[in-house]
Amino acid sequence: MTFELTKEYVEHIQELIEKEDSASIRTETESLFPADITGLLSELETESAKFLITRLDVERGAEILADMDPNERRDFLKAFTSEEISHFVNLFDSDDAVDLLNEQPIRVREEVIALLEDREQARFILDLLHYDEDVAGGLMQKELVKANVNWTVNECIEELRKQAEDVGKVYAVYVVDDFGKLHGILSLKKIVLAHKNTRIESLYDKDVIFVETYRPAEEVAELMQRYDLDALPVVNVQGKLLGRITIDDVIDVITEQASSDTLAMAGITGDVEEDDTIWQQTKARLPWLLVGMMGGILAAKFISFFEGDLKIIPAMAAFIPIIGSTGGNVGIQTSSIILQSLADKTGLDTTVGQRLIRMFAVAFINGVIISTIVFGFNLLIGNDVQLALVVSAALMSVVFLASFMGTMTPILLEKIGINPAVASGPFITTANDLIGYGVYFGLAHLLLNL
Amino acid sequence: MTFELTKEYVEHIQELIEKEDSASIRTETESLFPADITGLLSELETESAKFLITRLDVERGAEILADMDPNERRDFLKAFTSEEISHFVNLFDSDDAVDLLNEQPIRVREEVIALLEDREQARFILDLLHYDEDVAGGLMQKELVKANVNWTVNECIEELRKQAEDVGKVYAVYVVDDFGKLHGILSLKKIVLAHKNTRIESLYDKDVIFVETYRPAEEVAELMQRYDLDALPVVNVQGKLLGRITIDDVIDVITEQASSDTLAMAGITGDVEEDDTIWQQTKARLPWLLVGMMGGILAAKFISFFEGDLKIIPAMAAFIPIIGSTGGNVGIQTSSIILQSLADKTGLDTTVGQRLIRMFAVAFINGVIISTIVFGFNLLIGNDVQLALVVSAALMSVVFLASFMGTMTPILLEKIGINPAVASGPFITTANDLIGYGVYFGLAHLLLNL
Repeated sequence: MTFELTKEYVEHIQELIEKEDSASIRTETESLFPADITGLLSELETESAKFLITRLDVERGAEILADMDPNERRDFLKAFTSEEISHFVNLFDSDDAVDLLNEQPIRVREEVIALLEDREQARFILDLLHYDEDVAGGLMQKELVKANVNWTVNECIEELRKQAEDVGKVYAVYVVDDFGKLHGILSLKKIVLAHKNTRIESLYDKDVIFVETYRPAEEVAELMQRYDLDALPVVNVQGKLLGRITIDDVIDVITEQASSDTLAMAGITGDVEEDDTIWQQTKARLPWLLVGMMGGILAAKFISFFEGDLKIIPAMAAFIPIIGSTGGNVGIQTSSIILQSLADKTGLDTTVGQRLIRMFAVAFINGVIISTIVFGFNLLIGNDVQLALVVSAALMSVVFLASFMGTMTPILLEKIGINPAVASGPFITTANDLIGYGVYFGLAHLLLNL
Repeated sequence: MTFELTKEYVEHIQELIEKEDSASIRTETESLFPADITGLLSELETESAKFLITRLDVERGAEILADMDPNERRDFLKAFTSEEISHFVNLFDSDDAVDLLNEQPIRVREEVIALLEDREQARFILDLLHYDEDVAGGLMQKELVKANVNWTVNECIEELRKQAEDVGKVYAVYVVDDFGKLHGILSLKKIVLAHKNTRIESLYDKDVIFVETYRPAEEVAELMQRYDLDALPVVNVQGKLLGRITIDDVIDVITEQASSDTLAMAGITGDVEEDDTIWQQTKARLPWLLVGMMGGILAAKFISFFEGDLKIIPAMAAFIPIIGSTGGNVGIQTSSIILQSLADKTGLDTTVGQRLIRMFAVAFINGVIISTIVFGFNLLIGNDVQLALVVSAALMSVVFLASFMGTMTPILLEKIGINPAVASGPFITTANDLIGYGVYFGLAHLLLNL
């Protein structure tokens, strides 16, 4: 039922482009959805892709372009003049238009806006360019259908008819007063079922959830998810209706957030992808590898203080890995659970004390089991009982310390406004490793009378 | 604008419940959305929560219950009789009803279905209980509005009026033939704007994206995201329309997937939450800690073979941590990038060869920079040049090996049908660590003539 892009298909289209066979290209791609053509374009060379998209209806071209990956689109549009870009942007939803223009150099951005035939679109765009990408204002589109609270259903339908072409998905009509202040919402279902002369006043729903332009994008996503909303009206501080955010844009926010959190956990900065250049990938990865390396150098420096001890009991070295990895694993597990809990805004906040008590209870069970097994192993392979005790005591301490760090770090990071997802990354793992080695060698030095 | 749950508010409601002041409870919670009351209930004792929810309209109670966290709800409903549960389930959307019933013991499930007053709802539920949770059939609801292709718009509106109460969000009307086969879709917007006598045949959109009942949930999520759909009709193999999946359910799939991937990366099995019991948390975390511990024990056993070497050059021990952490960090970074790329189904697949070439290029740059810095550090602190060379050569090899493992493991795991997200977890990190120690001590033993 859905389209699957194959190598053969790409080659076939490539041939048609080389023959400049515009008619066949149109017929071949007619049955595809714009999102499928977007996928096809990313497999073609820039020149071929440009040939293809300019042979299609400009409405279809605009949809395809709106659907493209931002990085790919920025490169692709270098092959277009500002005037060519403006023909497409003319037909964009205003929020998508702003996204596209923000990827462009300032000169292109201003040229495109100046060249837009649809002057209302140009006004919409200028309005929206003020907002940061990561607040409600930066997610909203100006296209929506609003109705005055004093109208009848019939007048409302007339307005809908006027706006129908500009507003892709309507979802609902927003009800405002003479000053444009948002009063409520009227679903399309109610409009379909109502009598044409009914006054909107007696029909609309006053319990409308809205958001102010300055609210952060994560809050918007959380709201729309919590209340199962398809669209969320955006107002200014006076309550005037300025735009709306639709659910598809919020899904993008949610998935991008999840993917950048995952990358942050893995020690990767920014939203890097496999097909980015080698230099971009290095730039995203090297900083955290260097953090890990610095940790390693510090550990080396630290362990070298105990070279004398190691000369006497070389078997001590064998347990460096287990100390490091146990600390790292416990720390990551703990902070991941705390992170997840911090992201869930429903219900009352748990206090830090309650959190620590629970974490320590889990740490106690895990710690006892692990140190007992390792103690047994040490006796089994004939290691010295004292060394075995030191290793297990160090493991136990490391489990507790890593649980403490894993609990506190994300909480503190969130308090000072840093994305707590980095708390599961290499920095904290490295810190946990170092603490672990400190405890291990410290205990050994003391208890083994070295 | 939106409701914020405070401790004071919870205490105030708690007092009203103790006084059994039903009237005040209703007034106090009247302005809240059901999702907010769900949050409030989770802060109350089971008995108090039951008192509260049973004092509200049963429609409102049903919405609140539908919104609850599944684990919380399972515990909460233990305080209800099957008959009480059936009153709520009567008013559920069929997909939510099935979710609730699947959490219940078989006896309760069957009693509730038998007690349902709405016999159509009972039939819907029995239909849906056949499907696994993680396929399209398990996500769909039976509530939808369909119209015969031979009807007029007016007949369609009449059908909508009949169904309006049962179908929460309509989005669109599905167009079917006399045999119930899906032919197309008709948006509410078109219905509002059309003439009442227009025939549906001339109005509806034949390009409808649908999905078969057996398709996996991730495919459904990917489809709805790629094509920006609010609702997706579900058909059987004959193309007969059986139900629809709405976007809010898919958002839940997307966020659950993201959260369980993150937990998998952190070495946590299953969907554990901070407020789960200590035993549940231990069960989810201990297995992976034991994997890490086994790795540590193997490393200890392995390093102990080189005790003789360590006695001669104790400084070697100092570099065990940097070898382990570099291997671990590079492996996690690499597999996270591959994972993200595997999850993105648009465009043609990259071949394994292309992937490895890119990864090795990045590995080369990162490896050279890190080994050079560490080499410089070793000379600076006056370590032996030969040892410095061994450490840097080992680091270089570890970066390449970890890049290779990080690329291949997720690809192979996906091929054999295991969630590749576990590839960034403790198991692979442990394997990378062990390989790293092997390379390090092997090289040292050979090059330092020990």
